[in-house]
Amino acid sequence: MTQSFKASIALFGATGDLSRRKLLPSMFHLFQEGSLTHDFAILAIGRKDMNDEDFREVARTSLQDNEKLESLEGLDSFLSCIHYVQVDITDVDSYSTLKDKFESVESSVDTEGNRLFYLAMPPQFFTVITDNLRRSGVTETKGYKKLIIEKPFGRDYESAYRLNQDISKTFEEHEIYRIDHYLGKEMVQNIEVIRFSNSLFEPLWNNHYISNIQITSSESLGVLDRGEYYERSGAVRDMFQNHMLQIVSLLGMEPPISLSSDDIRDEKIKVLKSIRKIDKKDVKNHFVRGQYDEGTVDGEYVCKYRDEEDVSETSNTPTFIAARLFIDNFRWAGVPFYIRTGKRMRNKETKIVVEFKEVPKNLYYQNEQDDILSKNLLILRIQPDESISLQLNVKDHGSEKDTKEIKLSYAIDNKDLARTVDAYENLIYDCLNGDAANFTHYEELMNAWQFVDSINQVWETDIAPFPNYRAGSDGPVKSNLLLSKDGFKWWNV
Amino acid sequence: MTQSFKASIALFGATGDLSRRKLLPSMFHLFQEGSLTHDFAILAIGRKDMNDEDFREVARTSLQDNEKLESLEGLDSFLSCIHYVQVDITDVDSYSTLKDKFESVESSVDTEGNRLFYLAMPPQFFTVITDNLRRSGVTETKGYKKLIIEKPFGRDYESAYRLNQDISKTFEEHEIYRIDHYLGKEMVQNIEVIRFSNSLFEPLWNNHYISNIQITSSESLGVLDRGEYYERSGAVRDMFQNHMLQIVSLLGMEPPISLSSDDIRDEKIKVLKSIRKIDKKDVKNHFVRGQYDEGTVDGEYVCKYRDEEDVSETSNTPTFIAARLFIDNFRWAGVPFYIRTGKRMRNKETKIVVEFKEVPKNLYYQNEQDDILSKNLLILRIQPDESISLQLNVKDHGSEKDTKEIKLSYAIDNKDLARTVDAYENLIYDCLNGDAANFTHYEELMNAWQFVDSINQVWETDIAPFPNYRAGSDGPVKSNLLLSKDGFKWWNV
Repeated sequence: MTQSFKASIALFGATGDLSRRKLLPSMFHLFQEGSLTHDFAILAIGRKDMNDEDFREVARTSLQDNEKLESLEGLDSFLSCIHYVQVDITDVDSYSTLKDKFESVESSVDTEGNRLFYLAMPPQFFTVITDNLRRSGVTETKGYKKLIIEKPFGRDYESAYRLNQDISKTFEEHEIYRIDHYLGKEMVQNIEVIRFSNSLFEPLWNNHYISNIQITSSESLGVLDRGEYYERSGAVRDMFQNHMLQIVSLLGMEPPISLSSDDIRDEKIKVLKSIRKIDKKDVKNHFVRGQYDEGTVDGEYVCKYRDEEDVSETSNTPTFIAARLFIDNFRWAGVPFYIRTGKRMRNKETKIVVEFKEVPKNLYYQNEQDDILSKNLLILRIQPDESISLQLNVKDHGSEKDTKEIKLSYAIDNKDLARTVDAYENLIYDCLNGDAANFTHYEELMNAWQFVDSINQVWETDIAPFPNYRAGSDGPVKSNLLLSKDGFKWWNV
Repeated sequence: MTQSFKASIALFGATGDLSRRKLLPSMFHLFQEGSLTHDFAILAIGRKDMNDEDFREVARTSLQDNEKLESLEGLDSFLSCIHYVQVDITDVDSYSTLKDKFESVESSVDTEGNRLFYLAMPPQFFTVITDNLRRSGVTETKGYKKLIIEKPFGRDYESAYRLNQDISKTFEEHEIYRIDHYLGKEMVQNIEVIRFSNSLFEPLWNNHYISNIQITSSESLGVLDRGEYYERSGAVRDMFQNHMLQIVSLLGMEPPISLSSDDIRDEKIKVLKSIRKIDKKDVKNHFVRGQYDEGTVDGEYVCKYRDEEDVSETSNTPTFIAARLFIDNFRWAGVPFYIRTGKRMRNKETKIVVEFKEVPKNLYYQNEQDDILSKNLLILRIQPDESISLQLNVKDHGSEKDTKEIKLSYAIDNKDLARTVDAYENLIYDCLNGDAANFTHYEELMNAWQFVDSINQVWETDIAPFPNYRAGSDGPVKSNLLLSKDGFKWWNV
């Protein structure tokens, strides 16, 4: 299946953390796998005064330190494809160096003039960089031009709209690849495959047979050294608006007419459009916010959010959100989608639990006190381990009419996982391949912002009684009430 | 859940192989588990001149040699409940000894006068024993009377009808427990539980979603020292008419209105009645017969069927049958049920494979040559190991649009299996408990005979080109053609 691609990749923020930990290792592994060959070059862009050799040493160290790379075969060869370019990104004149570098690389390397711009930079630089790329003529090339940008894309509907207006001056929508690294995770990509390549699930995948769907993404870590960023984003912008709603749309979408980017994204957009809008006065009935107090995680004392570095002592930023969504269409009407995500939770895990309705008539009993049957559950674990399980009832061996619950399970084995070093590797491959299905389309983005804006508008003006959950817990008690009032519970499976 | 029962069990054929290997160990384990207590007695019946002590030594040795019993705790206590009674079963006068023994036991043991008659005897004695029990007054008791009989029950519709007429003079239908030991196997009993205690399967369990169902019961053994019996029965009477059609009815039945014996058997009977009757001229299009040639099984040379002890050199008896059945009702119209059972096959295994239809529209490809997806399969393994698996498609890790097949599996663990020593234990428990669901009702039996009579009538008058499959193979080639003409294949999963 491996294709090889011809392109120069201009990597803005090349000396930054993301580049060193994720992007260079991903590109190196694509090189080892043959997807990138000698017909490619990386133009590593930074403001520091370095030469090629200096940067290659930085890259070498990062790759040598990377634990996911199984070998360093081809390292020198890969490094020789990297060229350092010093650019002051706010100064349009400074881009001439970059233009020259593209041209000199393209005179010796068969990139077909394809130019990929990867902005591994804070979002406040997106506009200035794309403007300067255009004004300096760097984006004029005989090959394609593509832009990869990291989240966050705006902080609400309005700012996302303006940012997109700015970027659109230089790149068209089909040239813009908005990263949501969750969409690069194998098990997230598997949602679509599991649904549409099996005849078993799709007939059951609707409000006749499913009672509710639960998505949990919890972290045991706190905000670490990202307090400044987190104060501005919080759980809603950091996780919910993007990753969580993307998973909802993958779970909820109709079968696409093909696997093309457009066809898949069309279906996802329809889901996002169908999510019931919540009036400001109803926010409290559908959403629960939380902020962690001090507590114990993995046996160690940890401080409360308000005591973290660069965090206000009276911070109103939620580090936890639980939500109850309804997708008001024929397939999903009446089926709640419950979502929770937070920091400093008991475990680090991301999982989806699909709970099926009870059998129409229960002939069995589970035990003598309790005549209900265990629920059928489909459990997709995304991290830390990736697996699929199905919780079923079988005969309780040797007894008469009792049943017991079992799990049929399949764990994706480490050998398979080793085939990519990171979700980013899948995404860079997709972008080079022109497959935008696993990137966020503008319309998806705007529908998601529209939905979460109403929550943020309430929560940002209304001071919360924070902190309201202990570090190392499952979040605020109200998160449980959100389900229990519907007769459900969070599945700890 | 364990109940305890009061009864005397008259065991005809107490010194025979079945009693020693299966029935006494099963009863002993029921005693260890508390289902049988001191309020019970075994009247061990044989024609040999033995006393209680002699027989108890026979029983002791059998129990000590039994590999499935985890302990011998309570052995002496159990043996003290056994009394030997010498009876010439063909002589009605001889039954007075048995009558006296019942009365003397009942004077000291609180059996409530319940009398269970277990005929672990060849079928030619069923009539004479039940007649003599009645004529001698042994079946007159203040408690219940029940009869357990082993297969075969007749050798065709006519003989089964006559045999039942005979037995009915002494026992009513609700007092007759016709053993089909397959129905005592946990995984066979699990078919009903898996179907009706899970909301996942029943919506899919019909001709909209299932393309075909395959039942395989193969043995690697030959006929051993049972040539004389096997010459008279063959694969059709030994396996197909009873075990195989019972599994078909469990797989095909509608949800019963309750788990009562009557409600379950009503549904099973409807399935058997709905199986399409095959005209004699069509037998060759729906059934394949085989008889094993010499060959190699587990690396050892084995002889052909016709060279086995007590087998005719020109035997026309099938040791293999493959069948294609249709259940002509709303649920199953158009879904073939394929069945194969034989001796001297490659493996010893009993399994059910439910093959689901393809997805309505295939978006994926499995590999570059082949753009079909693997089928979804539900695999129920009955022996030698008991397990449930589901074959599904998932994303082929790290690749683009390809899928790969995986199995979600659950193996019933040995700890659970150790809870019963044998399928017979479940069945004796059920009989004591008055639960006849796992025994063959007269109507089931007669419908099954009616169906297989047409096959036997063709095959017994038409000489087959036997032998036609090598020992250690998957049976005759024509068995594959039976499926391939419908576009299917036997799943070796």
